[in-house]
Amino acid sequence: MTEEQLRKILGQYKSGTLSEAEALERLRSLPFEDLGFANIDHHRSLRQGYPEVIFGAGKTVDQVAKIVEAMYRHDHNILVTRTTPEHFQRIKQIAREAEYHEIARAVTVAKDHTVRGKGTVMVISAGTSDMPVAEEALVTLKIMGNNVEYVYDVGVAGLHRLLDRRDQLNRARVLIVVAGMEGALPSVVGGLVSVPVIAVPTSVGYGASFNGVAALLGMLNSCASNVTVVNIDNGFGAAVVASLINRQ
Amino acid sequence: MTEEQLRKILGQYKSGTLSEAEALERLRSLPFEDLGFANIDHHRSLRQGYPEVIFGAGKTVDQVAKIVEAMYRHDHNILVTRTTPEHFQRIKQIAREAEYHEIARAVTVAKDHTVRGKGTVMVISAGTSDMPVAEEALVTLKIMGNNVEYVYDVGVAGLHRLLDRRDQLNRARVLIVVAGMEGALPSVVGGLVSVPVIAVPTSVGYGASFNGVAALLGMLNSCASNVTVVNIDNGFGAAVVASLINRQ
Amino acid sequence: MTEEQLRKILGQYKSGTLSEAEALERLRSLPFEDLGFANIDHHRSLRQGYPEVIFGAGKTVDQVAKIVEAMYRHDHNILVTRTTPEHFQRIKQIAREAEYHEIARAVTVAKDHTVRGKGTVMVISAGTSDMPVAEEALVTLKIMGNNVEYVYDVGVAGLHRLLDRRDQLNRARVLIVVAGMEGALPSVVGGLVSVPVIAVPTSVGYGASFNGVAALLGMLNSCASNVTVVNIDNGFGAAVVASLINRQ
Amino acid sequence: MTEEQLRKILGQYKSGTLSEAEALERLRSLPFEDLGFANIDHHRSLRQGYPEVIFGAGKTVDQVAKIVEAMYRHDHNILVTRTTPEHFQRIKQIAREAEYHEIARAVTVAKDHTVRGKGTVMVISAGTSDMPVAEEALVTLKIMGNNVEYVYDVGVAGLHRLLDRRDQLNRARVLIVVAGMEGALPSVVGGLVSVPVIAVPTSVGYGASFNGVAALLGMLNSCASNVTVVNIDNGFGAAVVASLINRQ
Amino acid sequence: MTEEQLRKILGQYKSGTLSEAEALERLRSLPFEDLGFANIDHHRSLRQGYPEVIFGAGKTVDQVAKIVEAMYRHDHNILVTRTTPEHFQRIKQIAREAEYHEIARAVTVAKDHTVRGKGTVMVISAGTSDMPVAEEALVTLKIMGNNVEYVYDVGVAGLHRLLDRRDQLNRARVLIVVAGMEGALPSVVGGLVSVPVIAVPTSVGYGASFNGVAALLGMLNSCASNVTVVNIDNGFGAAVVASLINRQ
Amino acid sequence: MTEEQLRKILGQYKSGTLSEAEALERLRSLPFEDLGFANIDHHRSLRQGYPEVIFGAGKTVDQVAKIVEAMYRHDHNILVTRTTPEHFQRIKQIAREAEYHEIARAVTVAKDHTVRGKGTVMVISAGTSDMPVAEEALVTLKIMGNNVEYVYDVGVAGLHRLLDRRDQLNRARVLIVVAGMEGALPSVVGGLVSVPVIAVPTSVGYGASFNGVAALLGMLNSCASNVTVVNIDNGFGAAVVASLINRQ
Amino acid sequence: MTEEQLRKILGQYKSGTLSEAEALERLRSLPFEDLGFANIDHHRSLRQGYPEVIFGAGKTVDQVAKIVEAMYRHDHNILVTRTTPEHFQRIKQIAREAEYHEIARAVTVAKDHTVRGKGTVMVISAGTSDMPVAEEALVTLKIMGNNVEYVYDVGVAGLHRLLDRRDQLNRARVLIVVAGMEGALPSVVGGLVSVPVIAVPTSVGYGASFNGVAALLGMLNSCASNVTVVNIDNGFGAAVVASLINRQ
Amino acid sequence: MTEEQLRKILGQYKSGTLSEAEALERLRSLPFEDLGFANIDHHRSLRQGYPEVIFGAGKTVDQVAKIVEAMYRHDHNILVTRTTPEHFQRIKQIAREAEYHEIARAVTVAKDHTVRGKGTVMVISAGTSDMPVAEEALVTLKIMGNNVEYVYDVGVAGLHRLLDRRDQLNRARVLIVVAGMEGALPSVVGGLVSVPVIAVPTSVGYGASFNGVAALLGMLNSCASNVTVVNIDNGFGAAVVASLINRQ
Repeated sequence: MTEEQLRKILGQYKSGTLSEAEALERLRSLPFEDLGFANIDHHRSLRQGYPEVIFGAGKTVDQVAKIVEAMYRHDHNILVTRTTPEHFQRIKQIAREAEYHEIARAVTVAKDHTVRGKGTVMVISAGTSDMPVAEEALVTLKIMGNNVEYVYDVGVAGLHRLLDRRDQLNRARVLIVVAGMEGALPSVVGGLVSVPVIAVPTSVGYGASFNGVAALLGMLNSCASNVTVVNIDNGFGAAVVASLINRQ
Repeated sequence: MTEEQLRKILGQYKSGTLSEAEALERLRSLPFEDLGFANIDHHRSLRQGYPEVIFGAGKTVDQVAKIVEAMYRHDHNILVTRTTPEHFQRIKQIAREAEYHEIARAVTVAKDHTVRGKGTVMVISAGTSDMPVAEEALVTLKIMGNNVEYVYDVGVAGLHRLLDRRDQLNRARVLIVVAGMEGALPSVVGGLVSVPVIAVPTSVGYGASFNGVAALLGMLNSCASNVTVVNIDNGFGAAVVASLINRQ
Repeated sequence: MTEEQLRKILGQYKSGTLSEAEALERLRSLPFEDLGFANIDHHRSLRQGYPEVIFGAGKTVDQVAKIVEAMYRHDHNILVTRTTPEHFQRIKQIAREAEYHEIARAVTVAKDHTVRGKGTVMVISAGTSDMPVAEEALVTLKIMGNNVEYVYDVGVAGLHRLLDRRDQLNRARVLIVVAGMEGALPSVVGGLVSVPVIAVPTSVGYGASFNGVAALLGMLNSCASNVTVVNIDNGFGAAVVASLINRQ
Repeated sequence: MTEEQLRKILGQYKSGTLSEAEALERLRSLPFEDLGFANIDHHRSLRQGYPEVIFGAGKTVDQVAKIVEAMYRHDHNILVTRTTPEHFQRIKQIAREAEYHEIARAVTVAKDHTVRGKGTVMVISAGTSDMPVAEEALVTLKIMGNNVEYVYDVGVAGLHRLLDRRDQLNRARVLIVVAGMEGALPSVVGGLVSVPVIAVPTSVGYGASFNGVAALLGMLNSCASNVTVVNIDNGFGAAVVASLINRQ
Repeated sequence: MTEEQLRKILGQYKSGTLSEAEALERLRSLPFEDLGFANIDHHRSLRQGYPEVIFGAGKTVDQVAKIVEAMYRHDHNILVTRTTPEHFQRIKQIAREAEYHEIARAVTVAKDHTVRGKGTVMVISAGTSDMPVAEEALVTLKIMGNNVEYVYDVGVAGLHRLLDRRDQLNRARVLIVVAGMEGALPSVVGGLVSVPVIAVPTSVGYGASFNGVAALLGMLNSCASNVTVVNIDNGFGAAVVASLINRQ
Repeated sequence: MTEEQLRKILGQYKSGTLSEAEALERLRSLPFEDLGFANIDHHRSLRQGYPEVIFGAGKTVDQVAKIVEAMYRHDHNILVTRTTPEHFQRIKQIAREAEYHEIARAVTVAKDHTVRGKGTVMVISAGTSDMPVAEEALVTLKIMGNNVEYVYDVGVAGLHRLLDRRDQLNRARVLIVVAGMEGALPSVVGGLVSVPVIAVPTSVGYGASFNGVAALLGMLNSCASNVTVVNIDNGFGAAVVASLINRQ
Repeated sequence: MTEEQLRKILGQYKSGTLSEAEALERLRSLPFEDLGFANIDHHRSLRQGYPEVIFGAGKTVDQVAKIVEAMYRHDHNILVTRTTPEHFQRIKQIAREAEYHEIARAVTVAKDHTVRGKGTVMVISAGTSDMPVAEEALVTLKIMGNNVEYVYDVGVAGLHRLLDRRDQLNRARVLIVVAGMEGALPSVVGGLVSVPVIAVPTSVGYGASFNGVAALLGMLNSCASNVTVVNIDNGFGAAVVASLINRQ
Repeated sequence: MTEEQLRKILGQYKSGTLSEAEALERLRSLPFEDLGFANIDHHRSLRQGYPEVIFGAGKTVDQVAKIVEAMYRHDHNILVTRTTPEHFQRIKQIAREAEYHEIARAVTVAKDHTVRGKGTVMVISAGTSDMPVAEEALVTLKIMGNNVEYVYDVGVAGLHRLLDRRDQLNRARVLIVVAGMEGALPSVVGGLVSVPVIAVPTSVGYGASFNGVAALLGMLNSCASNVTVVNIDNGFGAAVVASLINRQ
């Protein structure tokens, strides 16, 4: 459903061609598709230039399949996060372009390969165990049309590794920094660059890391003032915001 | 100290005009000014295009005065946050351009009025009591060279007020949304716009608001994926990131 | 056991027909049935017009069966919450009218279909994953004699969907709003209606949602003053209170 | 502004008497009054039959005075909560009917004394120190047109006092139960009555009461299923919901 | 090892019959038995009149068996808490008197059946799901030589059931009150009796019960001043203290 | 009001001398005195052999005076906890026997000096700063008729001081152990004695002591099984339970 | 890669034999080995005299194998913590010297058996269940070249066992004290010795131990001032610091 | 009291010159001085080579004076932490050598100026506001006989400042790193040195720093394995441990 369609319905209502009841009916039925358990909101893609996104966690193979099917009729890219190989098998039958990203636990269906970002988004992670979150960010960045670079396993206790890459860091237009445990990496990176840093705490760690709380608090209290934070393990959200910045 | 100076020292070292010891000495002495209790880092302004910033809370009038004095010799703008009228009186004696922003509890010394942002940054707050934080953001945005707009006291329980401003929201290049209590406003705003939203939880509320924790958690769990979060009451940080985005 | 029976015993005691010991014995044995591990309190149904309710979680098939059996001799409706298909199989053998509500994880035995509510109770949920809690509320509302309506998957980041239903919202006599993550929906709904809103936080979310704590705090701090809150995932409790309000 | 006025503007727009711009202008200017730091929303009183309410905490005498002045031109009752004698002195100059309720820390301006509630609302508190919260509820109930009864200082460790009042409890249409410390009173009261109980945890206590958290958690986990909960010390909110129920 | 043996060794050291090294050696080897992974401290039974106790959780069948074997050579009663049928099978082979208490998840080996308590200890639980903890208390009370009574499933929302038993409560010399959820029962019981009440919070509940934290806080903040508290689910500890009181 | 009076009223009702209404009236008016803001419950002293107790915190001089006045007409001992010199001055005018206990912040009015405890209660504190809590316990123990001993400032990092007193510890019938910071003292004391230990965490400490939470958790997790716990800083509660144990 | 190699590259760059690009290339490729998912930092061993360490938790058998393989080419000792028998089987194929330490869940590959510590490090644990953490410390201490002693299962409720070993404690140069539950042991040990005590809280316990939080807080608030603390269950970290102290 | 005195008493007891009772009496009276509210433990200084230390917080001028007086008779150094100018004035009258350290809020009385540390201890702080804690560490280090160096205000967002000092860092034998907010500095420093790092979280920060909790968690989860942690703001404790390490 396009904006033109919306304007047309409104115009017909104003002119009296459509009664109030009819206008409401059309508006109600069009922009959403109500699958009973889920409302697919094609508006959002319209409004925000997003791919259509399904948060896969806690949805059955069946539910995900039905949503993908409804989305697939439109020409948007599709991204399914927090998903499994079982979901993928079924999606593959609906959409042949579907790809599974194992470490990221994500499925993408890419129809539109336009590069929309003006520069490069860089993803940095502190440890090997942070990879699933970093990869979720990477996959999201790509499906949203960004050029990306990444460097993994560069914790603050081994600074030289990071300092080595300083030039590369300075070329990025936005950075996503993924870290668990003490979550100190975004502060250090923030001090090295002059662009926005999006910090993603991860649930990696044990004991007093409290499943990512230590990292989250560390990032919220960053002494680098170019750092903002998203939820624990939310690689997807970080990538959405980075994409929006990169398009500006 | 300019980048040219830095390059010159490095060149002289390479060519042998400066010994290693001399080069180190110059580099060490130049970029910082060590006031004993504080290291002013003129590099940061160089590197990041920031004004020089002093976090005033917990610093004596004397300490702040000495830091301002050292900064004032350079041509950067100066911003003192979390400060008091007493601090201001003293700063005024050093820098005649100094202005006091009462609600924001901030002092600015503006030498450079260049507009650096490409568009408008909008600041939205949920309630009257959130004003000190919203104003800290506004003051910071201005001293960093942004055009700003704002709308205050538009909580989610009175949506019509916000929906009324929809066009205005959609013209902004970045939005800062300030809210205490349940912190729901960024999610609602995030759903209405297609640009980054920086959410600032405030310590406004009582009982189970836990001095801003409820708002902070609400924002971290936002169902709008274009939202990132900064520390409770951190209007300054939100404005820095918004400025960086607005320059891109 | 009816109130008449109670009055009779008391009368006989006053008049001396029953000794104190006998009176106590009768009173003690009648209103409860002591199954050893559980005291069935038929009084409560008497006093409060409730169905008899069993909280199924952590009870064996055997325990639930014995309690249902004891209840089934009376003419009250029966509701078993947090239960499983295994429990249902066994209950079915005792009470042929038993029905299993899969998503709600509930069993009902409906003997009395009287509509006791004066108006409609509406159940609204923010996301697909909140359905088990929303359905528990729905099932409870029905067994307690209410007319119900519902709308699912209308999060605050997509307000238009909710605003579309405004008339429907305004027809309800009470609303139950179910949401996880940031739990902002009750505030928004509360601002749109003039009747009580009962907010149910759910454990849906990840990271800093802390299994429903973020939603719970959001709801307790709601800026809409017609909102009260029940425990995380407590669809049952919300429905009981909504029923009581709807009967008045 | 009445609903008639709203309907009129909409009708004129439909018929063409008003252009879109004019219609928007009127709608925008009328329902709110923008005092710069606050938006008074006369709509809310229209929509919800509330008095106009000001949350006084953290507002200056001047700010409160300006808001009261703007409200006083309309015929609604006014309630200022969390206020001080200083606020009252100033309000008194604007509105002669103003009364100060010392223990409740509230000011009321009552123009409309209609009884709107169908029955009695009862307020029960566990201890003497809970009185400010209980009184805030009482004052709010009265200004919203309810008949009220109350009983104070009836903690669960002295049950006989409460059991003595059983008949009185059973006559109420809604009950507000205010308690700090372990917050057990709503569960006990909930078991004695068949109507909704609104539980208000208070910050009364010390040590592991954590300023009302213990009471809040106790109430959220109540084994009585007719209990809902509001924020710590939120006597006002409890009274609003109780009023809405009592009007039905 | 008896106190006499200890005195003898000390006497021999004083008189010079034993060298310091020899004395140390004897003292070190006797009172403990070091199984490598565990030190059995027969002293404790001597000193405190306890049975020998093994906390079974997290110990292998083998480890428990070795400890029981070492203990069994002495004439003390043995209690294994938090154990499993597998542990029991193996213990049975070592000690024929061993009994398994399924609900309590405990094994006892009773050699000494002396009644040591002067009166009755009563165990009261709020709900059916609290039974494992209540039974752990009961089993411990019996192996420590107490006469016990119990009443289960008497939550505060159904007070009449508890009030019915008032005489029985008043006959007890100590009471153990076990409750999850809001943990209000000890306050109510505490108000009805004049003897010490030991409150045991359980991890029963969901959502904001936080695995027993709500109950724990409720009990610590009890308005009844004859209540003390033990750790969540610690039926054993409550029974030990109750036994000590009952012996006095 | 004595038990005899109660029995008389009940007898007259049974025999018909008193109508139900008259009986209720007498019962209602006698056992309580309703001062408006407080219900004095003389029953409690009757039932439990307690002194009459006023929790002074947050009560005005006037309120406390009125309650003391009402209590003073009876022959019970009176204890006012958490009080101030101002309260004392006023109480002194009502009750000449009143004494102020400065460190304990308590006032006592002792009319009855009977020793009711069978043995000695010992109070032990870990540090000098724990004294207010330890003294509150001591004052309460004395007014409840116990012989007491105490030893202060014997932290676990200087064990020899405690071990020196071992004989003294072993003579006590109950021990109250007061400690802030890590709260380890009750575990150590618990291992040295064979009687009940009541642990009182204090809010003494800084940083991660979280106003007594560290001590509270330490005590709840004590590896000594003869330890029970009361609320942070609750010296009064510990003393009440110790008194009850000491009377048995 | 040795320091000599580093110096050589720098010298060649200074003299012009290597261009900047070449120098960077060599430096970048040498000190790290980038396995894609992990950067092995041979520098760290160089710089700090550590064995090469792999944190095994959450790494696949394959990932661990590849890292060990890369490390094994150098002459450092290797330590794999938080690992499994499956990991060990595979490591064994790469490094025949590999040993599995079952309780410690660690694999070591020891090539260098030099004793580097000047004295003895002692490991003390409070309970049998703390063994995995204590053993992780022991294994780490040994692979880092320390002489070690240990004593297990000496909780503070049985002090005599610990006091018995006083001489042994006083011979240690550093002590590691491992405890769960109330975590009081380090305070007691700290009071008995004059050397640094490294406290390791463990997640052993239940209920209000909150998986080691109670022990952690207890240790942070230790009244013994020679105590420092590491993360919950971090036997490895404690051993590293103890080794560094023991080498001085 | 010296060790010689202790040995003499023990020898006399062995030989029979002293009876047991006499020996006990002497031992008991000597090592402590019981001031009623405090036990001065001269043993500790003997045993551990510490100065005598008084934690001043919450002690009156009078109490501190009496303790200093008792200590001053011996030849140990004295340190009073968390103290005020008022305390100092009074101490000065007792001990003329007393010095007040304003920023550290400490008083020292230095009689013994022996350097006991083998190397240098370095104190590093992240921000100006951390100075009180850093200075408390410095004062303690000096009174315990260490050579010290320090560098302040070197946060991780300005790494170059720290890297500049790398040589200096590498010369230290132990480092104390003091930081508030995100507490990341110890991890970075830990990665740069090969000796123990003692991390001190401070309560500096606002919002989600939770008075030092964010910094504390960050440090406990440090990815540098040579880091141990002390309580929030505990500069004193860090210095004690650093001194002990530096003496080895």
